[in-house]
This record gives sequence, structure tokens and C-alpha cells, in this order.
Amino acid sequence: MIRTFLTAALLASAAPLGAQPLPTPTPAPSSAPLYLPTVPADVAALRDRALNDDHYAWDIVEGLTTEIGQRMGGTEAEARAREWAVAKLKALGFSNVRVERFAMPVWTRGAESAEILAPFPQKLALTAFGNSASTPPGGISGEVVGFDTLADLMAAPDAAVRGKIVFISHAMPRTQDGSGYGFFGGPRRQGPSIASRKGAIAVVVRSIGTDHHRNPHAGSQSFEEGASPIPSAALALPDAEQLQRILKRGKPVSMHLTLVSSVRQGESGNVIAEVPGRDPKAPVLLVGGHLDSWDLGTGAIDDGAGVAITTAAAKHIMDAGRPLRTIRVVWFGAEEMGLYGGMFYKDLHGREPHYAIAESDFGADRIWKVDSKLGTTREAEARALQAALAPLGIVPGAIDKADGSDIGPMIEGGLPAVGLSQDGTHYFDIHHTPDDTLDKIDPEQLRQNVAAWTAMLATLSGGIEPGPKQAKRR
Amino acid sequence: MIRTFLTAALLASAAPLGAQPLPTPTPAPSSAPLYLPTVPADVAALRDRALNDDHYAWDIVEGLTTEIGQRMGGTEAEARAREWAVAKLKALGFSNVRVERFAMPVWTRGAESAEILAPFPQKLALTAFGNSASTPPGGISGEVVGFDTLADLMAAPDAAVRGKIVFISHAMPRTQDGSGYGFFGGPRRQGPSIASRKGAIAVVVRSIGTDHHRNPHAGSQSFEEGASPIPSAALALPDAEQLQRILKRGKPVSMHLTLVSSVRQGESGNVIAEVPGRDPKAPVLLVGGHLDSWDLGTGAIDDGAGVAITTAAAKHIMDAGRPLRTIRVVWFGAEEMGLYGGMFYKDLHGREPHYAIAESDFGADRIWKVDSKLGTTREAEARALQAALAPLGIVPGAIDKADGSDIGPMIEGGLPAVGLSQDGTHYFDIHHTPDDTLDKIDPEQLRQNVAAWTAMLATLSGGIEPGPKQAKRR
Repeated sequence: MIRTFLTAALLASAAPLGAQPLPTPTPAPSSAPLYLPTVPADVAALRDRALNDDHYAWDIVEGLTTEIGQRMGGTEAEARAREWAVAKLKALGFSNVRVERFAMPVWTRGAESAEILAPFPQKLALTAFGNSASTPPGGISGEVVGFDTLADLMAAPDAAVRGKIVFISHAMPRTQDGSGYGFFGGPRRQGPSIASRKGAIAVVVRSIGTDHHRNPHAGSQSFEEGASPIPSAALALPDAEQLQRILKRGKPVSMHLTLVSSVRQGESGNVIAEVPGRDPKAPVLLVGGHLDSWDLGTGAIDDGAGVAITTAAAKHIMDAGRPLRTIRVVWFGAEEMGLYGGMFYKDLHGREPHYAIAESDFGADRIWKVDSKLGTTREAEARALQAALAPLGIVPGAIDKADGSDIGPMIEGGLPAVGLSQDGTHYFDIHHTPDDTLDKIDPEQLRQNVAAWTAMLATLSGGIEPGPKQAKRR
Repeated sequence: MIRTFLTAALLASAAPLGAQPLPTPTPAPSSAPLYLPTVPADVAALRDRALNDDHYAWDIVEGLTTEIGQRMGGTEAEARAREWAVAKLKALGFSNVRVERFAMPVWTRGAESAEILAPFPQKLALTAFGNSASTPPGGISGEVVGFDTLADLMAAPDAAVRGKIVFISHAMPRTQDGSGYGFFGGPRRQGPSIASRKGAIAVVVRSIGTDHHRNPHAGSQSFEEGASPIPSAALALPDAEQLQRILKRGKPVSMHLTLVSSVRQGESGNVIAEVPGRDPKAPVLLVGGHLDSWDLGTGAIDDGAGVAITTAAAKHIMDAGRPLRTIRVVWFGAEEMGLYGGMFYKDLHGREPHYAIAESDFGADRIWKVDSKLGTTREAEARALQAALAPLGIVPGAIDKADGSDIGPMIEGGLPAVGLSQDGTHYFDIHHTPDDTLDKIDPEQLRQNVAAWTAMLATLSGGIEPGPKQAKRR
């Protein structure tokens, strides 16, 4: 009763007797709800079995990090890791297990240390960037000049930099999608070249990371044309902040830097294994990660997890039967020092048709979003993929873009691709540091990854039929 | 109505007509509520001003960690820290600022590294314990024998240990009061002596810590009588777990260890400063922390925070006027290597009467509990102290116990004492590691500490009267 009365009163006030009705705004466009197709029962069953029971991925990443440990591209340790990979992939029952070898220059870290000489003598924790020039064994000394951003360094007159050790800071924030790494990685990627061209004798950069541990973040950089190589290194974040505080005191700051390194010619390779499809002429589905790691940790999240997750997913398909399309698993070599493995695969196979390519190389935290770029004629497949993943808490993302590290150039080149985005909120706490070790991987999150990759492969495989072994069992 | 009806029905069923009443259990003793006295307005005002506005503590710990950094007991860096402390304490207006010097042996860390040679070659992160014997510069190699607990090592036959490198693990849990550090610290404190007596050539221990970073936890140990010194070191927790996984594979594990160190005679000292009381003959109130740190970090939480908090509290009393009793602030020297400063203060002053002694040496997280041991005749004072601290969220604890590091032996000796317990839930993530740096201190929690110490000093000071300066202002 009361409500009816009030409604009448409101209506009366909105259109008072004898007045023109007030104009009504155009209704806002409703955001169209995304209706996704039903998930085939066999895809859902495969996905959920992996989610609950997968042990292949943990077995691979535990084994690789324990029995090999660090495996920097081009080193003897990476060669041992390739042997380990071949043995493991054969033992799991993969076919056509092989190594495609290539040559590369191998940069190797030597002794490294940093010390403030004045005004407040103390050591700082740092690590050289890949492709840093070497100091003499006894190191070098110089005055430190600090810049809060790369832009500040670029704007500085050469005279302010010449003969000095440049320090560059930045303000990379923590993000879920890791999008800060591009822009805020500039001090590492471009900083050394800019400092060198202005006449600096060395450059130290606040680690491209989001933690506060005394573990500096390695990473590669390369000197651009016209920039002669100088020693370059990352300070651990607490040490970068310490150096900022010391510089703020306004007294001249001098530093001694030892950053010894060497370069030699070496070799690496891509380890490749397959689940053969029923149609050997159908374009392959490529999944993988990179086998090499930085030298400081054991490469658990970068990228032991990636090869483990994608291999486990392919193994779940193999266990279920024979897909129509061949699934090719690639453990790329020497990604960290410049996508050597990815570029080599592209040189050898990049012109062959691929049904889709996808790489896992962003840690081991849960997948939160799926992007794809399968082409305008394959939207139904992209939607089927989104549908298969949504029950894992995965947001349907773009259907016209995807990215990846080793596979990035091939995506640029037009190959169809899928991107399963891992949550990167904590990734840059650990990335490229000594802390990249097995204990950082949560087995439950790892299984969610395997479930997503299994569902993706099942969706794109063209249908799985019982193989000889599976048929016999029935 | 309904309630009344139900109650009547229940009563009827409990004592049915004509039956014996059922027996009633004795009521449980009620836990007596703790009624605390009213807090004097001047104490509350001083406390709350420190809580909201203190900047003295941050200024001290920021300055000490930035301008000095590490300051291991007996070193030249600790000597610079003493000079810094004297200048700072004088600048703050303290009286009778002085250094009481003493001699001590100084153990100094040299090159250190560890490497698994077989079956899975890789480096491990470790750091030598204080008083470790030195290896030759080229290191030593041996087979590793692992024990999950100190008890397992003790039970092992000598033949299983002789000529080998002993590895001891443990299972220290995370606790708020840090109570795990006693028992689970055994592998560090007693492990090396036990291993040595059984003929081990070296011993490595899982760090006594609760984190998972590649930053090993240093700490001192000493060899008991009959145990000849051997090299001893802490493995970072991820590395200890890695070694356990490697040992579980069941193949012989060999390790190369370099743990170079040296010992020389040196000197340290206690820095002492006072807020003079109106009654120079009244027993003093002693508060403080330790000035020295381990050599790996900058000693922010251990124990830059402790000297900062207690000095800031004394300064707040000084700012308010003149206390009846002298407040003596002590920045103890060389605590980490064996309570040298505390023992030296005890030798010099331990027989003088003290009104109360208290030390802050458990980080910079908030205080959650107050214990005291002022004596049976001073319960009213203990309750007044509990009352003054309760509004800061501090639990009234025991009134018949208190503890402290440097002051521990003097408490044992019978001096009245107060213990303001900091939350140690995260303390052993950082304790004695390179990660003990300024960024680990939360300024808001630091102010809560200063507020608690200020309230404690105000409560026990005998009353604060306006000094000459304060009187003038009015």
C-alpha cells in the first residue's frame, strides 16, 4: 500500500500536470553477455582428471631442478639437461624424441662484487647482466651518478656522466599480467647502451623486480650499435634503495666494482618430442617452454615449470588415446640469452604450417586468462577453448592476440597461437634470482596449469580416439 | 511467552515429579578478570604522542644502517658505529655519553662456497657459522651423511660419521614468541661439537630460519671441550631441502666446501648515555639493545631497531622533563659473538643497584605482550605497567619472569627486569641473513614500540617534572 502510494507520488512529481515531459537519456548499451558453447564431456573429463591427479608435471620439474639445477644456455649444464630431457621424454612414451642443435656465443659470469668506498664504506649485493663487459680482475673504481628514471639519464648532458658509474632506478609496480616488465625493464635493456654512449665507465641498475631480498635479478641486455660494451649489473632492491639514500646525503659517492665475465663459442639445442596424430599430414600443435635457465637459481619457475606443464598436458592426451593432429612438445634451448632456441626453430620450421603454437613461460602460478589468435575463420574454436577453460576460473580474453617468448617471432610471423596467462603478481619477486627454486612452486596451482593445457590440447586436437593400447584394455 | 513456556517444560523434564534430583557438577572456577589501575594522564599523553609522532627511532635506525651498514663485533666497522653512536647521542642531548671498551677475539669470514660434486653437480648457498674452523683456501671434499635431527646424529655410530661431511636438518616452526629458536637451534649450537667428536671433517646445517630464500642464516656456535674445531656452516633453506632431495635418491653424495675464516685479537665497547634523574642516588633504569650486527646485512632488525626504539623512548622522557630516576641507555657491543658487551657491563656494573633493566632485541614488529620480574613487593608497579601498555594492544603477561640477550645474565643474577615481547612470527625469516635491511622495518610498528617503551619508562621513572627548558616554555 505504502509503496503504491509513493510510486504514484513520484510519477506525479516526474510529470506534473500540464508540464512537458522531461527528456529521457538514451539507455546505455548493454554489455553483451558472452554465451560460450557446451564443453564436450571427454574434454571436461580429461581436464578434471589432470586437475585432481596430475603428477607428471611435478615429477618433471622436481627432477630437472634437483638432478640438474641451473642450466644456463650453451653451458655443459644445459647439455646435461638435454640428455636428461631426452631420457625423460622417451621414458614417458613420446615419439620422435630428438635434439636440434645450434651454435651460439656463451657469456659466462665470473667473480662479482660491489663496494661503496666513500662516504659510507659498505658492500652492496649485485649481479652482472648477460653480455656485460668484463672489468679487470681487480675491478674498477669511480664516482657514482644517480638517475631516478631512464628519461633522466637520457636528458643528462654527457659531461655529467663521462668517466662515471651510472646508477639508474625506476618504479616498476606489481601487476597481475606482468605488463610493467616492458616499460620498466628499459633501464636494464637500454640503460647500458645509453650510459655507454654518454661515456660512462659502468652502469648499475635497480633490479627489475618487485621483492625486497638481497638477491639481485639477472637478465640479458645487448649493446646497441655505437655503444661500446661497458660493465653492467643489477643491484638487489634493498641495495638500490640504500644507494639512493646514500646519494641523497649529497656527498660524493665512490664505488668499487668487480664484474668479471668471459665469452666463448658454444652450443645449445631444442629438445623435441611428439604425440603422433592419426593424420600425419595435419598441421602440428606446438606446445612447450624453455629448457635453459639463468645461472643463479635452479630454474624452477623459469622455466622448469613451463616444460613440465606442457609436457604433462601432452602426456595426458597420449594416455587418453590418439589425437587427430600431432602434438609437438618443444623444450627450447638458450632462451634467456636472446631467444636462440626460438629463432632456430623458426629458421628450421617456421614456414611449415602449425595448427596452433603456445608456450608456458611465466612461472607456475594459476592461469587466470586465455587469449588466442587462431584467425578470423576459427572463432568457434576460440570460443570452445574459452568454454573448456572457464570452469578452472579462467577469464575468456582476446581472440585476436596471443604472445610468448620463444614463439613470439613466429606469432609475429602469422602462425596461429594461444596464450594461457599465468598470474604474475608474485612472478617478479623471484624472476632471474637465486630464489628461483622448487619450493616456490605450489603443486595445486601447478595442477591447475596442467588441467588448462590438457583442456586446450584436447579442444584443438581434432578428437582423440583410443589407441592400440587403450583399445586393447576395453 | 514462548520462552517462558519452554523454560517451564525444561524444568519439568529436569526434575520429574517424584524422582530424585540429578546431581549438579561443581561450577568451573571462573578465571578472575584482571582489573588494572587507571593510567596517569601524563603517562598516557607521553605514550600517545610517541605513538603518533615519533621520528627519533626511524632517524636512528635509518642513519645507522645507511651511514655504517654492517658492524660486526670487534671490527673497524663497529668502531665507526661507536663513533656514530656517540655523536648521535650527544646531538640528541643525552648526558654522560661515553664508551666502555673491552678486548675480544674477532672471528672474520673469508671466501665461502659449497658445491655438490656427484651425483648431480651444482652449487649450494651457505655461510659459515661464527667460530667455524677454516678450510684451506682450496677447500675440502668429502662424502655427505645426512641426519634429520640432532638426536639422529647423536645416536649414529662414529663409524657412520668419521671422515665425512655431516648435514643436519630440523623442523623449526614459525611461532609468535620465537620459542622454537631454543630447541631447534640445537643443530647449530651443539651439532658442530657432536659431529666433531664423532670424527666428521665438517658440518653443514639447515639454516635456523623460517623463510625460503637463498640467504643463509649466520649465527655463532662454540666448540665444547674435547671437540676440536671443524668447518661449520648454514645452508640456505632451499639448499638444505635440495640436499635432502639429492640424498633421498640413494646415491653417494660428495661435496666440496670452502669456508675460509680467521681469528685475531680486537676490541669492542659499550656506548652509554644518560638522562640524569633528579635523585642522583636513586638506582638507574637501564634500557638498550646491541650496536653490533652480523656481517651479512645492515643490522636493521637485529639490532638497529632495538637501540633506536629504546633511545627514542628515553629521548621522549627527556623532552618531557626530568625523571626522578636516571635513565641509562646502553648500546651493547659484540652481542652476536657471545654477549661480550653484556658480560662486560655485568662485570663493571652488575653489582650496582638497578631499578629495572630491559632490552629490545627481537626485531621491529609490534609489541604484543609485557612480562616483568620486579620482585614480589612491586606488584602494584607491574600492574601499573600492564595498564599503561594495554591500550597499545599489549597483553598483560607474567609478573615473575623477564628475559633479554645482553641483560640475560644480570636477570639471572637477580636484577629487576621488564620484557616487552615483540611479535616474532616473521623474525626468523630475516634473522642473521643478508636480508636484515632497513626496508624490513615498518615505521608504524616501530612507533608502537617506541610508545610502549616510553610508557614503560614514564611508569617506572618516579615522576617527571619540568626541567629548566620545559619550565621556561610554560
